[in-house]
Amino acid sequence: MSQGSSEVDHPEEVRTGPRRAEGGFPVVGIIGGGQLARMCQPPAVALSLTLSVLAESATASAALVVPHAPVGEHSDLAAVRAFAAQCDVVTFDHEHVPTDVLAALEADGVALHPSPAALVHAQDKLAMRARLTELAISCPAWARARTREDVDAFGERVGWPVIAKTPRGGYDGKGVRRIREPEEVADWLARVGQVGAVQEGILLEEAVDFVRELAVLVARSPSGQCAAWPVVETVQADGVCTQVLAPAPDLDPGLAATVTEAGLRIAAELGVTGVLAVEMFEVADPRTGAPAYLVNELAMRPHNSGHWTIDGAVTSQFEQHLRAVLNLPLGATTQRSPWTVMANVLGGSHPDLYPTYRHLMARDPGLRVHLYGKGVRPGRKLGHATVYGEDLAELRGRAQHAADYLQGVVTQ
Amino acid sequence: MSQGSSEVDHPEEVRTGPRRAEGGFPVVGIIGGGQLARMCQPPAVALSLTLSVLAESATASAALVVPHAPVGEHSDLAAVRAFAAQCDVVTFDHEHVPTDVLAALEADGVALHPSPAALVHAQDKLAMRARLTELAISCPAWARARTREDVDAFGERVGWPVIAKTPRGGYDGKGVRRIREPEEVADWLARVGQVGAVQEGILLEEAVDFVRELAVLVARSPSGQCAAWPVVETVQADGVCTQVLAPAPDLDPGLAATVTEAGLRIAAELGVTGVLAVEMFEVADPRTGAPAYLVNELAMRPHNSGHWTIDGAVTSQFEQHLRAVLNLPLGATTQRSPWTVMANVLGGSHPDLYPTYRHLMARDPGLRVHLYGKGVRPGRKLGHATVYGEDLAELRGRAQHAADYLQGVVTQ
Repeated sequence: MSQGSSEVDHPEEVRTGPRRAEGGFPVVGIIGGGQLARMCQPPAVALSLTLSVLAESATASAALVVPHAPVGEHSDLAAVRAFAAQCDVVTFDHEHVPTDVLAALEADGVALHPSPAALVHAQDKLAMRARLTELAISCPAWARARTREDVDAFGERVGWPVIAKTPRGGYDGKGVRRIREPEEVADWLARVGQVGAVQEGILLEEAVDFVRELAVLVARSPSGQCAAWPVVETVQADGVCTQVLAPAPDLDPGLAATVTEAGLRIAAELGVTGVLAVEMFEVADPRTGAPAYLVNELAMRPHNSGHWTIDGAVTSQFEQHLRAVLNLPLGATTQRSPWTVMANVLGGSHPDLYPTYRHLMARDPGLRVHLYGKGVRPGRKLGHATVYGEDLAELRGRAQHAADYLQGVVTQ
Repeated sequence: MSQGSSEVDHPEEVRTGPRRAEGGFPVVGIIGGGQLARMCQPPAVALSLTLSVLAESATASAALVVPHAPVGEHSDLAAVRAFAAQCDVVTFDHEHVPTDVLAALEADGVALHPSPAALVHAQDKLAMRARLTELAISCPAWARARTREDVDAFGERVGWPVIAKTPRGGYDGKGVRRIREPEEVADWLARVGQVGAVQEGILLEEAVDFVRELAVLVARSPSGQCAAWPVVETVQADGVCTQVLAPAPDLDPGLAATVTEAGLRIAAELGVTGVLAVEMFEVADPRTGAPAYLVNELAMRPHNSGHWTIDGAVTSQFEQHLRAVLNLPLGATTQRSPWTVMANVLGGSHPDLYPTYRHLMARDPGLRVHLYGKGVRPGRKLGHATVYGEDLAELRGRAQHAADYLQGVVTQ
């Protein structure tokens, strides 16, 4: 190793662990180097916490911005174990860490947040449905199907079409089909019983006639402290969230209280630590016509429906997740402006985003741009744009224009 | 290099440059790894910009949070040159890069922001006073002194005591003396003409009888676009800023406009690129008694008087500095709440801050804590705490309590 003072490198970084700040500050390990891990870095900087990220590659979204980001597979026990040994607590960028890896870490005494026992309800939609039903949380009618006969029986009971889902591994509309007959999931049924996404069967749900989609975001710490942000509306297109409106416009105050209570109760009953996102359908109660909800999905990590909190709330979901997994006191979840609108930026036709975003900044100096450092692929989530203020319609227009412009859907 | 998939390290980091995001995004180099460079990392993450920091050590404040932070001295031309070669633009965490190093970089064609020609006015207080006087910007009465006779003549002219300053190298009250006779700066006068902080003489200024201290923060891009944040009051104790109140309470609207115009004019006339902080005294005009100002100091970088913008303004000074040095359009400088109060956290008696800040978070969930990852030394700036809302007195109490508690001045 060179001793020359004009050498510009940092060889001592290799094979050492993450560098923590003096003063007793901990290291939070995140398995997975996607944009959710990336967006934990700004609050970690402010709070003097050190992040360490087990990244899919050296150019993963979070690896570009976190100094200690070793490359390793989340399914590789040896890699995950070596990684966890350098961290005070370990949390997740995604739900894909295999059960056996989680069990081994837990046996090692690693502080996992959320715990495997909680996380399974975000990993396995059948486990989620079963547990929420036990807790009397409103869900769509559902069943587990292992055979064509099971699918037929469910369709006859609730009416066709029905929604079929792989219990594990789906996201953003993947692993979800709207079917009118068992034949449309023949490939999935053929794999039931084999190791994989449909090992325990497939999940069938009634096709819900919903008014709109809502999301409740809560955080819970190991000490049991909980906090909830205002309920939001998530606007979806083709199974992908395009906009989030905070708070959900014209939401019935009774329903707002009911779904917030449901979110907090799910967090407590499942023993969630960290952020929990509960995606819901707003429906009309079939008997009374009153506003009601049905839970759609759970995520136990910062979630797209909460990106608005970075610019729109006193404490962002990313800061809150770090506080929660460290059992630090939670921050205020108050919304800072009457309305906040977030629009997702999806990959489009521009390979180079930089010139485009430069123009966009000139057009809207109040726009909050968040990009994830990812290469452009059509439909890929590359970032989001947030605006806040008094006039919802104006804000929706500005946010969507920003997203469309960056995607290349509009050119002025 | 190991090919094993369970290896947890990133050897390829060594001796490669900073890793930029795909899509045409640039690398901003910052010379100096202090807290100002550190606080540029959160907005760089959001904007998908890559930072590279030339750090004093591998555990410098910014080096803890920026992946590419080679260690090198800002006065070592070879180190600075190698560093700059990996960056698209270069800016500064402090004013201490020597003139000959800056000149060599400029000759190399490095894009320096601010330019050396502008920066000298923040490096050299005599150059600053001379230029502002040319521009008819209000300053205290001042003179350059090389001898005891010069000091005596100035004291007789403006009245004792006078303020003596080393033109270069001072900060936070260092390099500043309130003197009643030339003997008190005999040591500085003895070094006039020698290489160093007083080579060109010492700066003498009248002792200003001021009402309070104000600061104007502006940003300017190479294209000439300018933006100013609201004028703030800076509360000082022993030459160190303890609180910043945004906006300055009960500020005369005419004076607010005058000092903002002065800040913008200084930025334009000096050709500043990036953030410029202008520290001022509010005084009563000696003839009319009307509110007036005198410029105290300039800084050409994000500044302590602007830390409130992270939580209190649409665009923070750190994001704006990055935008400006890249010639990106500037962001909105609107204040988000009626009042924002920032208090500096100074080092006190607690070696471990973590347990203390944990208690503080529990006491005030709305507190925005920003720590710099620095070891505790008495009086050292370790971080700051920000609160915002409607009631200035309540906010001042909360912010000061947070700072005092972290410093150990109060224990509950």
